Amino acid sequence: MSLRRSDTRHRVVLATAQMLAQHGLNATSIRTIAQRAQSPLGSTYHHFPEGKQQVVTEAVTWAGAQVSEHLAQQLQAGAGAGLRDFLALWRETLLRADFHAGCPVLAVAVQEPLDEAGTQALDAAAQVFTQWQAQLAGALQAQGVAPEQAAGLATLIVAATEGAIALCRAERSIAAFDRTAAQLRQLLPS
Amino acid sequence: MSLRRSDTRHRVVLATAQMLAQHGLNATSIRTIAQRAQSPLGSTYHHFPEGKQQVVTEAVTWAGAQVSEHLAQQLQAGAGAGLRDFLALWRETLLRADFHAGCPVLAVAVQEPLDEAGTQALDAAAQVFTQWQAQLAGALQAQGVAPEQAAGLATLIVAATEGAIALCRAERSIAAFDRTAAQLRQLLPS
Repeated sequence: MSLRRSDTRHRVVLATAQMLAQHGLNATSIRTIAQRAQSPLGSTYHHFPEGKQQVVTEAVTWAGAQVSEHLAQQLQAGAGAGLRDFLALWRETLLRADFHAGCPVLAVAVQEPLDEAGTQALDAAAQVFTQWQAQLAGALQAQGVAPEQAAGLATLIVAATEGAIALCRAERSIAAFDRTAAQLRQLLPS
Repeated sequence: MSLRRSDTRHRVVLATAQMLAQHGLNATSIRTIAQRAQSPLGSTYHHFPEGKQQVVTEAVTWAGAQVSEHLAQQLQAGAGAGLRDFLALWRETLLRADFHAGCPVLAVAVQEPLDEAGTQALDAAAQVFTQWQAQLAGALQAQGVAPEQAAGLATLIVAATEGAIALCRAERSIAAFDRTAAQLRQLLPS
Protein backbone atom coordinates (compact mmCIF):
# COMPACT_ATOMS: atom_id res chain seq x y z
CA MET A 1 0.00 0.00 0.00
CA SER A 2 1.49 3.35 -1.02
CA LEU A 3 1.84 6.12 1.50
CA ARG A 4 -0.72 8.16 -0.40
CA ARG A 5 -3.38 5.45 -0.24
CA SER A 6 -2.58 4.83 3.38
CA ASP A 7 -3.02 8.56 4.07
CA THR A 8 -6.48 8.50 2.53
CA ARG A 9 -7.45 5.53 4.65
CA HIS A 10 -6.30 7.26 7.82
CA ARG A 11 -8.06 10.49 6.85
CA VAL A 12 -11.33 8.56 6.49
CA VAL A 13 -10.89 6.89 9.90
CA LEU A 14 -10.13 10.23 11.53
CA ALA A 15 -13.11 11.95 9.88
CA THR A 16 -15.36 9.11 11.05
CA ALA A 17 -14.15 9.39 14.65
CA GLN A 18 -14.78 13.14 14.53
CA MET A 19 -18.27 12.73 13.08
CA LEU A 20 -19.18 10.11 15.68
CA ALA A 21 -17.88 12.32 18.49
CA GLN A 22 -19.93 15.27 17.26
CA HIS A 23 -23.12 13.96 15.66
CA GLY A 24 -23.31 10.32 16.74
CA LEU A 25 -23.69 7.00 14.97
CA ASN A 26 -26.97 7.42 13.13
CA ALA A 27 -26.03 10.81 11.63
CA THR A 28 -22.83 9.35 10.20
CA SER A 29 -23.06 7.92 6.67
CA ILE A 30 -20.36 6.82 4.24
CA ARG A 31 -21.29 9.81 2.08
CA THR A 32 -20.84 12.39 4.86
CA ILE A 33 -17.64 10.66 6.03
CA ALA A 34 -16.19 10.79 2.50
CA GLN A 35 -17.11 14.47 2.21
CA ARG A 36 -15.52 15.32 5.53
CA ALA A 37 -12.37 13.32 4.71
CA GLN A 38 -12.23 14.87 1.23
CA SER A 39 -12.01 11.35 -0.13
CA PRO A 40 -13.98 10.36 -3.27
CA LEU A 41 -16.86 8.00 -2.47
CA GLY A 42 -15.40 5.28 -4.73
CA SER A 43 -12.03 5.48 -3.04
CA THR A 44 -13.69 5.38 0.38
CA TYR A 45 -15.54 2.18 -0.55
CA HIS A 46 -12.29 0.81 -1.98
CA HIS A 47 -10.65 1.15 1.42
CA PHE A 48 -13.75 0.03 3.32
CA PRO A 49 -15.60 -2.45 1.08
CA GLU A 50 -17.99 -3.45 3.89
CA GLY A 51 -19.19 0.17 4.20
CA LYS A 52 -20.25 2.12 7.26
CA GLN A 53 -20.09 -0.70 9.80
CA GLN A 54 -16.45 -1.36 8.85
CA VAL A 55 -15.26 2.23 8.95
CA VAL A 56 -17.13 3.00 12.19
CA THR A 57 -15.64 -0.11 13.80
CA GLU A 58 -12.16 0.93 12.73
CA ALA A 59 -12.69 4.51 13.95
CA VAL A 60 -13.83 3.32 17.38
CA THR A 61 -10.87 0.94 17.65
CA TRP A 62 -8.46 3.66 16.49
CA ALA A 63 -9.81 6.25 18.96
CA GLY A 64 -9.67 3.69 21.77
CA ALA A 65 -6.06 2.82 20.94
CA GLN A 66 -4.99 6.48 20.99
CA VAL A 67 -6.24 6.83 24.56
CA SER A 68 -4.88 3.43 25.49
CA GLU A 69 -1.35 4.26 24.36
CA HIS A 70 -1.37 7.53 26.31
CA LEU A 71 -2.67 5.68 29.34
CA ALA A 72 -0.05 2.91 29.10
CA GLN A 73 2.74 5.48 29.10
CA GLN A 74 1.40 7.52 32.00
CA LEU A 75 0.45 4.51 34.11
CA GLN A 76 4.13 3.64 34.30
CA ALA A 77 4.32 6.49 36.82
CA GLY A 78 1.40 5.03 38.79
CA ALA A 79 -2.39 4.96 38.80
CA GLY A 80 -2.60 8.60 39.89
CA ALA A 81 -0.55 9.79 36.92
CA GLY A 82 -2.62 7.61 34.57
CA LEU A 83 -5.88 9.01 35.95
CA ARG A 84 -4.62 12.59 35.65
CA ASP A 85 -3.67 11.96 32.02
CA PHE A 86 -6.96 10.22 31.18
CA LEU A 87 -8.92 13.12 32.68
CA ALA A 88 -6.72 15.79 31.08
CA LEU A 89 -7.16 14.21 27.67
CA TRP A 90 -10.97 14.26 27.80
CA ARG A 91 -11.06 17.71 29.39
CA GLU A 92 -8.95 19.05 26.54
CA THR A 93 -11.17 17.30 23.96
CA LEU A 94 -14.27 18.98 25.38
CA LEU A 95 -12.69 22.43 25.59
CA ARG A 96 -11.10 22.23 22.12
CA ALA A 97 -14.50 21.38 20.59
CA ASP A 98 -16.22 24.01 22.73
CA PHE A 99 -18.47 21.15 23.98
CA HIS A 100 -19.74 20.39 20.46
CA ALA A 101 -17.97 17.01 20.38
CA GLY A 102 -17.11 14.32 22.89
CA CYS A 103 -16.20 10.63 22.78
CA PRO A 104 -16.77 8.54 19.61
CA VAL A 105 -16.84 5.32 21.66
CA LEU A 106 -19.66 6.66 23.85
CA ALA A 107 -21.55 7.74 20.72
CA VAL A 108 -21.52 4.22 19.31
CA ALA A 109 -22.43 2.65 22.66
CA VAL A 110 -25.67 4.59 23.17
CA GLN A 111 -27.26 4.36 19.72
CA GLU A 112 -28.81 1.23 18.35
CA PRO A 113 -28.24 1.34 14.57
CA LEU A 114 -31.41 2.01 12.55
CA ASP A 115 -30.15 0.70 9.26
CA GLU A 116 -27.68 -2.11 9.80
CA ALA A 117 -27.89 -5.23 11.88
CA GLY A 118 -24.16 -5.73 12.49
CA THR A 119 -22.76 -5.45 15.97
CA GLN A 120 -19.06 -5.08 15.07
CA ALA A 121 -18.96 -1.39 16.01
CA LEU A 122 -20.68 -2.05 19.32
CA ASP A 123 -18.29 -4.94 20.00
CA ALA A 124 -15.37 -2.61 19.25
CA ALA A 125 -16.78 -0.05 21.73
CA ALA A 126 -17.06 -2.76 24.39
CA GLN A 127 -13.46 -3.81 23.75
CA VAL A 128 -12.24 -0.22 24.14
CA PHE A 129 -14.07 0.27 27.44
CA THR A 130 -12.77 -3.10 28.67
CA GLN A 131 -9.20 -2.23 27.69
CA TRP A 132 -9.22 1.14 29.49
CA GLN A 133 -10.67 -0.47 32.60
CA ALA A 134 -8.11 -3.31 32.51
CA GLN A 135 -5.21 -0.85 32.25
CA LEU A 136 -6.45 1.26 35.16
CA ALA A 137 -7.29 -1.79 37.30
CA GLY A 138 -3.84 -3.28 36.62
CA ALA A 139 -2.10 -0.12 37.81
CA LEU A 140 -4.29 0.05 40.92
CA GLN A 141 -3.52 -3.58 41.77
CA ALA A 142 0.20 -2.91 41.28
CA GLN A 143 -0.19 -0.27 44.01
CA GLY A 144 -1.72 -2.77 46.41
CA VAL A 145 -5.45 -2.30 45.79
CA ALA A 146 -7.31 -5.62 46.07
CA PRO A 147 -8.41 -7.05 42.68
CA GLU A 148 -12.18 -6.63 43.14
CA GLN A 149 -11.83 -3.08 44.47
CA ALA A 150 -9.34 -2.22 41.68
CA ALA A 151 -11.80 -3.48 39.06
CA GLY A 152 -14.65 -1.50 40.63
CA LEU A 153 -12.62 1.69 40.86
CA ALA A 154 -11.43 1.34 37.25
CA THR A 155 -15.01 0.92 36.02
CA LEU A 156 -16.12 3.91 38.11
CA ILE A 157 -13.36 6.04 36.54
CA VAL A 158 -14.29 5.13 32.96
CA ALA A 159 -18.06 5.36 33.56
CA ALA A 160 -17.85 8.67 35.44
CA THR A 161 -15.54 10.23 32.84
CA GLU A 162 -17.81 9.21 29.96
CA GLY A 163 -20.89 10.41 31.83
CA ALA A 164 -19.21 13.70 32.74
CA ILE A 165 -18.50 14.27 29.03
CA ALA A 166 -22.25 14.02 28.38
CA LEU A 167 -23.13 16.34 31.27
CA CYS A 168 -20.64 18.96 30.05
CA ARG A 169 -21.91 18.83 26.48
CA ALA A 170 -25.48 19.41 27.68
CA GLU A 171 -24.45 22.22 30.01
CA ARG A 172 -21.86 23.73 27.62
CA SER A 173 -19.59 24.04 30.65
CA ILE A 174 -16.60 22.17 32.06
CA ALA A 175 -17.87 22.47 35.66
CA ALA A 176 -19.39 18.98 35.93
CA PHE A 177 -16.20 17.42 34.55
CA ASP A 178 -14.06 19.23 37.10
CA ARG A 179 -16.32 18.21 39.99
CA THR A 180 -16.24 14.58 38.79
CA ALA A 181 -12.45 14.64 38.34
CA ALA A 182 -11.93 16.03 41.85
CA GLN A 183 -14.07 13.22 43.30
CA LEU A 184 -12.20 10.53 41.35
CA ARG A 185 -8.83 11.86 42.44
CA GLN A 186 -9.93 11.57 46.08
CA LEU A 187 -10.54 7.84 45.61
CA LEU A 188 -7.08 6.83 44.49
CA PRO A 189 -4.43 5.47 46.86
CA SER A 190 -1.79 8.15 47.46
CA MET B 1 -58.39 19.59 25.48
CA SER B 2 -60.32 16.31 25.46
CA LEU B 3 -58.91 13.25 27.17
CA ARG B 4 -58.49 11.58 23.78
CA ARG B 5 -56.32 14.39 22.39
CA SER B 6 -54.31 14.50 25.58
CA ASP B 7 -53.73 10.73 25.30
CA THR B 8 -52.36 11.13 21.79
CA ARG B 9 -50.02 13.86 22.95
CA HIS B 10 -48.68 11.70 25.77
CA ARG B 11 -48.29 8.70 23.45
CA VAL B 12 -46.14 10.82 21.14
CA VAL B 13 -43.95 12.05 24.02
CA LEU B 14 -43.51 8.49 25.30
CA ALA B 15 -42.65 7.14 21.84
CA THR B 16 -40.10 9.93 21.41
CA ALA B 17 -38.41 9.16 24.74
CA GLN B 18 -38.24 5.48 23.77
CA MET B 19 -36.78 6.24 20.34
CA LEU B 20 -34.17 8.57 21.82
CA ALA B 21 -33.22 5.98 24.43
CA GLN B 22 -32.78 3.31 21.77
CA HIS B 23 -31.61 4.97 18.55
CA GLY B 24 -30.51 8.44 19.62
CA LEU B 25 -31.35 11.96 18.51
CA ASN B 26 -30.37 11.94 14.86
CA ALA B 27 -32.23 8.72 14.08
CA THR B 28 -35.44 10.16 15.52
CA SER B 29 -37.70 12.00 13.07
CA ILE B 30 -41.25 13.28 13.41
CA ARG B 31 -42.27 10.62 10.88
CA THR B 32 -40.76 7.69 12.82
CA ILE B 33 -42.11 9.11 16.09
CA ALA B 34 -45.61 9.34 14.63
CA GLN B 35 -45.37 5.76 13.35
CA ARG B 36 -44.19 4.44 16.70
CA ALA B 37 -46.88 6.37 18.57
CA GLN B 38 -49.53 5.25 16.05
CA SER B 39 -50.45 8.90 15.68
CA PRO B 40 -51.23 10.35 12.23
CA LEU B 41 -48.52 12.74 11.05
CA GLY B 42 -51.00 15.63 10.80
CA SER B 43 -52.22 15.06 14.33
CA THR B 44 -48.62 14.83 15.58
CA TYR B 45 -47.81 18.20 14.01
CA HIS B 46 -51.06 19.57 15.44
CA HIS B 47 -49.82 18.74 18.95
CA PHE B 48 -46.23 19.79 18.22
CA PRO B 49 -46.38 22.60 15.64
CA GLU B 50 -42.67 23.35 16.05
CA GLY B 51 -41.77 19.80 14.98
CA LYS B 52 -38.98 17.54 16.15
CA GLN B 53 -37.15 20.02 18.37
CA GLN B 54 -40.36 20.62 20.34
CA VAL B 55 -41.31 17.00 20.84
CA VAL B 56 -37.74 15.94 21.69
CA THR B 57 -37.50 18.76 24.23
CA GLU B 58 -40.76 17.68 25.80
CA ALA B 59 -39.70 14.00 25.86
CA VAL B 60 -36.42 14.83 27.61
CA THR B 61 -38.21 17.01 30.16
CA TRP B 62 -40.85 14.34 30.73
CA ALA B 63 -38.28 11.55 31.19
CA GLY B 64 -36.27 13.74 33.56
CA ALA B 65 -39.35 14.52 35.61
CA GLN B 66 -40.27 10.83 35.98
CA VAL B 67 -36.87 10.12 37.54
CA SER B 68 -37.00 13.31 39.55
CA GLU B 69 -40.35 12.46 41.15
CA HIS B 70 -39.13 8.98 42.12
CA LEU B 71 -35.97 10.52 43.54
CA ALA B 72 -37.84 13.16 45.54
CA GLN B 73 -39.95 10.47 47.21
CA GLN B 74 -37.04 8.16 48.03
CA LEU B 75 -34.74 10.95 49.21
CA GLN B 76 -37.17 11.61 52.04
CA ALA B 77 -35.67 8.47 53.60
CA GLY B 78 -32.13 9.81 53.09
CA ALA B 79 -29.44 10.08 50.42
CA GLY B 80 -28.70 6.35 50.59
CA ALA B 81 -32.31 5.42 49.83
CA GLY B 82 -32.38 7.96 46.99
CA LEU B 83 -29.19 6.58 45.48
CA ARG B 84 -30.48 3.00 45.74
CA ASP B 85 -33.68 4.01 43.95
CA PHE B 86 -31.86 6.00 41.24
CA LEU B 87 -29.55 3.05 40.55
CA ALA B 88 -32.37 0.48 40.67
CA LEU B 89 -34.40 2.48 38.17
CA TRP B 90 -31.62 2.58 35.57
CA ARG B 91 -30.60 -1.01 36.21
CA GLU B 92 -34.18 -2.10 35.55
CA THR B 93 -34.33 0.06 32.40
CA LEU B 94 -31.23 -1.63 30.98
CA LEU B 95 -32.39 -5.15 31.83
CA ARG B 96 -35.94 -4.60 30.56
CA ALA B 97 -34.58 -3.41 27.20
CA ASP B 98 -31.98 -6.20 27.17
CA PHE B 99 -29.37 -3.41 26.77
CA HIS B 100 -30.93 -2.16 23.52
CA ALA B 101 -32.06 1.10 25.12
CA GLY B 102 -30.74 3.44 27.80
CA CYS B 103 -31.30 7.05 28.81
CA PRO B 104 -33.03 9.54 26.45
CA VAL B 105 -31.37 12.49 28.22
CA LEU B 106 -27.90 11.04 27.60
CA ALA B 107 -28.82 10.44 23.94
CA VAL B 108 -29.67 14.10 23.41
CA ALA B 109 -26.58 15.30 25.27
CA VAL B 110 -24.03 13.46 23.12
CA GLN B 111 -25.32 14.19 19.61
CA GLU B 112 -25.05 17.53 17.93
CA PRO B 113 -28.14 17.85 15.69
CA LEU B 114 -27.37 17.60 11.96
CA ASP B 115 -30.53 19.22 10.73
CA GLU B 116 -31.77 21.81 13.20
CA ALA B 117 -29.96 24.64 14.86
CA GLY B 118 -32.14 24.92 17.98
CA THR B 119 -30.66 24.14 21.36
CA GLN B 120 -33.92 23.70 23.28
CA ALA B 121 -33.53 19.92 23.57
CA LEU B 122 -29.94 20.27 24.77
CA ASP B 123 -31.01 22.93 27.27
CA ALA B 124 -33.72 20.55 28.52
CA ALA B 125 -31.08 17.81 28.95
CA ALA B 126 -28.88 20.19 30.93
CA GLN B 127 -31.83 21.12 33.15
CA VAL B 128 -32.60 17.47 33.85
CA PHE B 129 -28.99 16.67 34.81
CA THR B 130 -28.87 19.80 36.99
CA GLN B 131 -32.13 18.89 38.70
CA TRP B 132 -31.02 15.33 39.56
CA GLN B 133 -27.70 16.62 40.90
CA ALA B 134 -29.43 19.31 42.99
CA GLN B 135 -31.79 16.77 44.54
CA LEU B 136 -28.96 14.39 45.46
CA ALA B 137 -26.72 17.20 46.73
CA GLY B 138 -29.55 18.59 48.86
CA ALA B 139 -30.10 15.22 50.53
CA LEU B 140 -26.37 14.80 51.15
CA GLN B 141 -26.14 18.25 52.72
CA ALA B 142 -29.14 17.46 54.92
CA GLN B 143 -27.08 14.54 56.26
CA GLY B 144 -24.16 16.80 57.13
CA VAL B 145 -21.99 16.61 54.01
CA ALA B 146 -20.32 19.96 53.30
CA PRO B 147 -21.86 21.84 50.32
CA GLU B 148 -18.89 21.53 47.94
CA GLN B 149 -18.39 17.83 48.68
CA ALA B 150 -22.14 17.20 48.39
CA ALA B 151 -22.20 18.87 44.98
CA GLY B 152 -19.18 16.87 43.82
CA LEU B 153 -20.61 13.58 45.02
CA ALA B 154 -23.98 14.30 43.40
CA THR B 155 -22.29 15.04 40.06
CA LEU B 156 -20.19 11.89 40.36
CA ILE B 157 -23.34 9.82 40.97
CA VAL B 158 -25.17 11.20 37.92
CA ALA B 159 -22.10 11.08 35.65
CA ALA B 160 -21.08 7.57 36.71
CA THR B 161 -24.62 6.22 36.34
CA GLU B 162 -25.02 7.69 32.84
CA GLY B 163 -21.58 6.42 31.83
CA ALA B 164 -22.28 2.96 33.25
CA ILE B 165 -25.43 2.81 31.12
CA ALA B 166 -23.23 3.32 28.03
CA LEU B 167 -20.68 0.71 29.15
CA CYS B 168 -23.43 -1.85 29.74
CA ARG B 169 -25.05 -1.23 26.38
CA ALA B 170 -21.72 -1.78 24.62
CA GLU B 171 -20.94 -4.90 26.64
CA ARG B 172 -24.54 -6.22 26.64
CA SER B 173 -24.01 -7.00 30.30
CA ILE B 174 -25.03 -5.47 33.63
CA ALA B 175 -21.59 -6.15 35.21
CA ALA B 176 -20.16 -2.63 34.73
CA PHE B 177 -23.32 -1.08 36.20
CA ASP B 178 -23.12 -3.29 39.28
CA ARG B 179 -19.43 -2.50 39.82
CA THR B 180 -20.16 1.23 39.48
CA ALA B 181 -23.15 1.03 41.82
CA ALA B 182 -21.10 -0.79 44.48
CA GLN B 183 -18.43 1.93 44.32
CA LEU B 184 -21.00 4.74 44.59
CA ARG B 185 -22.69 3.13 47.59
CA GLN B 186 -19.30 3.04 49.39
CA LEU B 187 -19.02 6.82 49.06
CA LEU B 188 -22.22 7.79 50.85
CA PRO B 189 -22.32 8.72 54.54
CA SER B 190 -23.92 5.87 56.50
